[in-house]
Amino acid sequence: MFEFELLATDGAARAGIFHTPHGALHTPVFAPVGTQATVKSLTPRQLQELRASLVLANTYHLYLRPGSQLVRDLGGLHEFMQWPGPILTDSGGFQIFSLRDISKVDADGVTFRSHIDGSKHRFTPEHCIAVQNDLGADVIMALDECPPPHDRAHNERAMARTHAWAVRCHAAHSNPQQALFGIAQGGIFPDLRAESARCIGALDLPGCAIGGLSVGESKADMHAMLDVVLPLLPHHKPRYLMGVGSPEDLVNGVLRGVDIFDCVLPTRMARNHTALTRTGRLNLRNRSFATERTPLAAECDCYCCLHFSRAYLRHLCIADEILASVLLSIHNLHLLQSLMREMRAEIQAGTFQPWAAQFLAAYKPARAQPQALASA
Amino acid sequence: MFEFELLATDGAARAGIFHTPHGALHTPVFAPVGTQATVKSLTPRQLQELRASLVLANTYHLYLRPGSQLVRDLGGLHEFMQWPGPILTDSGGFQIFSLRDISKVDADGVTFRSHIDGSKHRFTPEHCIAVQNDLGADVIMALDECPPPHDRAHNERAMARTHAWAVRCHAAHSNPQQALFGIAQGGIFPDLRAESARCIGALDLPGCAIGGLSVGESKADMHAMLDVVLPLLPHHKPRYLMGVGSPEDLVNGVLRGVDIFDCVLPTRMARNHTALTRTGRLNLRNRSFATERTPLAAECDCYCCLHFSRAYLRHLCIADEILASVLLSIHNLHLLQSLMREMRAEIQAGTFQPWAAQFLAAYKPARAQPQALASA
Repeated sequence: MFEFELLATDGAARAGIFHTPHGALHTPVFAPVGTQATVKSLTPRQLQELRASLVLANTYHLYLRPGSQLVRDLGGLHEFMQWPGPILTDSGGFQIFSLRDISKVDADGVTFRSHIDGSKHRFTPEHCIAVQNDLGADVIMALDECPPPHDRAHNERAMARTHAWAVRCHAAHSNPQQALFGIAQGGIFPDLRAESARCIGALDLPGCAIGGLSVGESKADMHAMLDVVLPLLPHHKPRYLMGVGSPEDLVNGVLRGVDIFDCVLPTRMARNHTALTRTGRLNLRNRSFATERTPLAAECDCYCCLHFSRAYLRHLCIADEILASVLLSIHNLHLLQSLMREMRAEIQAGTFQPWAAQFLAAYKPARAQPQALASA
Repeated sequence: MFEFELLATDGAARAGIFHTPHGALHTPVFAPVGTQATVKSLTPRQLQELRASLVLANTYHLYLRPGSQLVRDLGGLHEFMQWPGPILTDSGGFQIFSLRDISKVDADGVTFRSHIDGSKHRFTPEHCIAVQNDLGADVIMALDECPPPHDRAHNERAMARTHAWAVRCHAAHSNPQQALFGIAQGGIFPDLRAESARCIGALDLPGCAIGGLSVGESKADMHAMLDVVLPLLPHHKPRYLMGVGSPEDLVNGVLRGVDIFDCVLPTRMARNHTALTRTGRLNLRNRSFATERTPLAAECDCYCCLHFSRAYLRHLCIADEILASVLLSIHNLHLLQSLMREMRAEIQAGTFQPWAAQFLAAYKPARAQPQALASA
């Protein structure tokens, strides 16, 4: 179980298959985020039609509501949310540290208050694993501390804790049906990133994650950190870049050797009435779309683009209809799924490098960089 | 076009086929409501999977946004909302008269302010038809005035206006691809109801509607008015009871000879986290569902009941997830569609009377009667 087969490499980019108890993941893979055990706006059937394979759910949210023991008693996350494919749960660390005002970290763990009812809770590494054992995802994450990326002293302390906690999580985890990944941190500091990559990569775990990116640092910093970290991670294990999911970030990540991604971006953008395209973004509330009979994207073969006009989509957005979120979520996820399929094929054909250069040259990045899209 | 074939009768109940340019409607039929050219929460594909046939859209809403001329220029409502089956538009009268504070009626028409931006508009019978001609539904409605049901003087005035407007609408309408129905009014007054039924029934129109019911009157009054009106309407034309759609009201309407229904109830209830069942209603936010692994309704074969537990549905409701609205809309509409299919079969088998008696005996009506569910 959790064998990772490398099928092809093209520069640093890799195409592979990661075997899980709920099926084989063809990597590089993008995971839609189902924060509260539902990928917002979509049914599992719609997700399957989009050929999504891996889905992420949030430990922090599900621990608080409906409760991880209840999910266990109901048969685990797959049964609960009726997702037959692989599921990954994060550790909850990112959410807890995003709520800095209501959380307090010490060497042994973190104490926090629920954003729902203010109740007090505590996660130690051992408790974090017990909660994820209850949820029952195929891939689970070690508890980590994710500090602001530019604060060196804080990143030094947090990294040391994250490493110690990864070891404790490893010791606490015994279910062979769940793969535990450690998380490398280190902010925007190359030496810390290198140290963290070596430390997490040295643990006897089936995969490695890169945390603390796409949390407010510049694109240049993100790329520089990936350039430091990825060559230091074990070649034969899948590498998971957490909370990253814009089309350009996916291509840049794959170029550097990332195998797994997740992000709320496609579904959150959809609810904010923004469509992703292969060259940038469209705000569907724009008046110029009011009379356009053409689909969102001419070349796209998703359900939204095969049926509906830009004029209708704009109407749904302006009228604040749920169907706007549904159709734009379908389109945005279809775009990312297609992009991942295309990258896998290009890597296997050995043509990924020029393909990626061409894609990135045509892509117009969003004007303002959205902050902390990894948050749920 | 617009031929109505009566296939079978059972007491006053009728099973038939109403032919429209976008396909044959098997009656009695229930139409889900797509107020703003979308049945809230659902894709057209999901509606087709539910075997919905007729869909209603609201003239008032679409006239204001995105604008009926724009819908015409984009190819009409079927093309705009991608609904391949028959569509019915109401006249907008009900919505305008629901906004009593911002509308003013005179003999020639009604002046009203937009609920969106306060802009001033005027509907005459002729304008109402022109707007519906632009929208392009298969069945369109004459402009009517729908007063509070218990005010006799108001109902007398409004009925006279409604009759005069129906004649003007008839004269103004010339598109043979759209069937114009007149609307009988009369509040809770049997003599007014009888007069209105005779007057509307005498017009050379392909169908007759009954308005001003399910707007705050008692169930007993509704049934009494149906008992007065239906025998006076032409036997060979479809009869449409506007804004009615709870399971018991559908059975009571079919028992009395109604052929067409519409209501926001199934989708609005879904968004309020209430499920319809064959015997009553379930509030999915109820704590008692938190640990239940069983489906919403054991005998139901909708997508929601085939896959998801009550515990998961409750979680989605409490977490305020869009998927709660989607799944409960699917369940509620599936229930009504199944109920209509079953009634058609029972009428054709000549067993509808005992079936209806048994259904109504088992049905526990909602504690509080929801007011004015016809409103959009």
